Amino acid sequence: MAITPLFDRIVVKRLDGEEKTAGGIFLPDAAQEKRQEGMVIAAGGGRLTDEGTVLPLELKGGERVLFGKYAGSEVKLEGETYLVMREDEILAIIEA
Amino acid sequence: MAITPLFDRIVVKRLDGEEKTAGGIFLPDAAQEKRQEGMVIAAGGGRLTDEGTVLPLELKGGERVLFGKYAGSEVKLEGETYLVMREDEILAIIEA
Amino acid sequence: MAITPLFDRIVVKRLDGEEKTAGGIFLPDAAQEKRQEGMVIAAGGGRLTDEGTVLPLELKGGERVLFGKYAGSEVKLEGETYLVMREDEILAIIEA
Amino acid sequence: MAITPLFDRIVVKRLDGEEKTAGGIFLPDAAQEKRQEGMVIAAGGGRLTDEGTVLPLELKGGERVLFGKYAGSEVKLEGETYLVMREDEILAIIEA
Amino acid sequence: MAITPLFDRIVVKRLDGEEKTAGGIFLPDAAQEKRQEGMVIAAGGGRLTDEGTVLPLELKGGERVLFGKYAGSEVKLEGETYLVMREDEILAIIEA
Amino acid sequence: MAITPLFDRIVVKRLDGEEKTAGGIFLPDAAQEKRQEGMVIAAGGGRLTDEGTVLPLELKGGERVLFGKYAGSEVKLEGETYLVMREDEILAIIEA
Amino acid sequence: MAITPLFDRIVVKRLDGEEKTAGGIFLPDAAQEKRQEGMVIAAGGGRLTDEGTVLPLELKGGERVLFGKYAGSEVKLEGETYLVMREDEILAIIEA
Repeated sequence: MAITPLFDRIVVKRLDGEEKTAGGIFLPDAAQEKRQEGMVIAAGGGRLTDEGTVLPLELKGGERVLFGKYAGSEVKLEGETYLVMREDEILAIIEA
Repeated sequence: MAITPLFDRIVVKRLDGEEKTAGGIFLPDAAQEKRQEGMVIAAGGGRLTDEGTVLPLELKGGERVLFGKYAGSEVKLEGETYLVMREDEILAIIEA
Repeated sequence: MAITPLFDRIVVKRLDGEEKTAGGIFLPDAAQEKRQEGMVIAAGGGRLTDEGTVLPLELKGGERVLFGKYAGSEVKLEGETYLVMREDEILAIIEA
Repeated sequence: MAITPLFDRIVVKRLDGEEKTAGGIFLPDAAQEKRQEGMVIAAGGGRLTDEGTVLPLELKGGERVLFGKYAGSEVKLEGETYLVMREDEILAIIEA
Repeated sequence: MAITPLFDRIVVKRLDGEEKTAGGIFLPDAAQEKRQEGMVIAAGGGRLTDEGTVLPLELKGGERVLFGKYAGSEVKLEGETYLVMREDEILAIIEA
Repeated sequence: MAITPLFDRIVVKRLDGEEKTAGGIFLPDAAQEKRQEGMVIAAGGGRLTDEGTVLPLELKGGERVLFGKYAGSEVKLEGETYLVMREDEILAIIEA
Repeated sequence: MAITPLFDRIVVKRLDGEEKTAGGIFLPDAAQEKRQEGMVIAAGGGRLTDEGTVLPLELKGGERVLFGKYAGSEVKLEGETYLVMREDEILAIIEA
């Protein structure tokens, strides 16, 4: 099943792996906030301007991104949860 | 009876079939949230810009779409319930 | 008495006839929500752009339209109640 | 004493005469809502665009108009109460 | 001491003289609302557009104006209270 | 230590000297509101338009200005408190 | 690990060193508010205009900046906390 976001929307899969503290200690689940990192699953065709021009997006599938705590709409699809947000809600790209 | 949305509005019929969990288990109704998927029933003639130009829409009747939890206005017509929303409230197109 | 809406306003008379359920059963008044359908009584001369151009409206008197639950301002005129709303608040045209 | 509204403002005197119900019955005061009709007393010189052009108004003194329940600012001048509103808050012109 | 408002701001001194009722009766202070009239003390150099053009104001010092109940910011200067508001908050000019 | 505001921001030091009442009486501290006057300490390089042009500011260091009660963000720097606000939040220039 | 902010976002590391009072007294932690100063860690590629032009930012990595109390989104990355904000939320540059 393929998901194609419209215009400047991005489909993101939130990373839920464990996150070490600065000192290298793994925290149990309850002590962890939701991670604000994710992988771009799909990117829309471009931002539509008021004049009807389509501006290509910066992001593409496979990039690892950082986003705000309340960014995006949660959607469920075939039992999986994704975040769909506008490219402008993405704060930064992370390169490992 | 024909329904013709104005400008950049889309008429959507929400899918209400059951949704399996990731593990393939069917959930009883009370445990289910409303699905955020639907079929496009009709699409308006285009987005009207501030200068009076009409920009054709991306979506057309028959497409399966994903939308936000609170997207659109619910309207009742001949005993059926539809959602009417702006194209910009549609998050993504789903291809089976 | 003639009523002439200004610019992009539309005067609508809400339909209050009974609405059958999907199964064809007539509901008593208390069980009925206000219908979101109406007839266009009069349409303004056009939408005024920021630059002072007037863009003709799509709708005209006699059309049957669908609108949101909270659309428009209710006004009383000679004992009759009308809704005055902007054309952009009209969701769709209904053709019987 | 002359009152000259600025730009796109309109000075309106609300009609307070009695309003018959549909069946022709006069309602006592307490049962009556404020009428949403008035006479245009004075109209400003025109709407100022962001670029500094002045667009002449549609309305002029002496016209009978319909406005929303909460339209305009109430001002008192020599013991009389007027409504000052933007032309865009006027819903329609009424011709007897 | 000179006060020079910036851009499209206007310095207004609220009139606090007594206001007769329609029937010519003077009201005691507690029964009086603050008057919505004042004298323009100083006017700014002009409205700054988004493109950086300065559009001269309509109002100038010495004019008597009408404003909304909550218009402007109150400022105290050498023991006197003034209202500073944008020209667009002025409703009308009053000529005696 | 030098502080350089960005774009259309202004750094202001609020005047906290005593303020005489109209009758020349000095008020004790508790009876005094914070003064809405200050000195411009530094001004940014100019207002950035949506198109990327930089428009020079009107204000410069050393000017005495009037501002609204809730204007600006308070910042502490080396134990001193300043207000940083946009030039558009400045109401007027005061010349002694 | 590299972090690349998108468009006009700035990644800032808040300074948490102690701050002397005006009189040179060091305050214990509980008496201290969070400092509104930080170092720019990374700056985006430029502000995207509505027409699709990219305007280069003023700020670059290594600059010491002042920001509002509630500026930015806090993000955690490898156990470190950063603030990501738009360049327009930066109030001023500080030069030691």
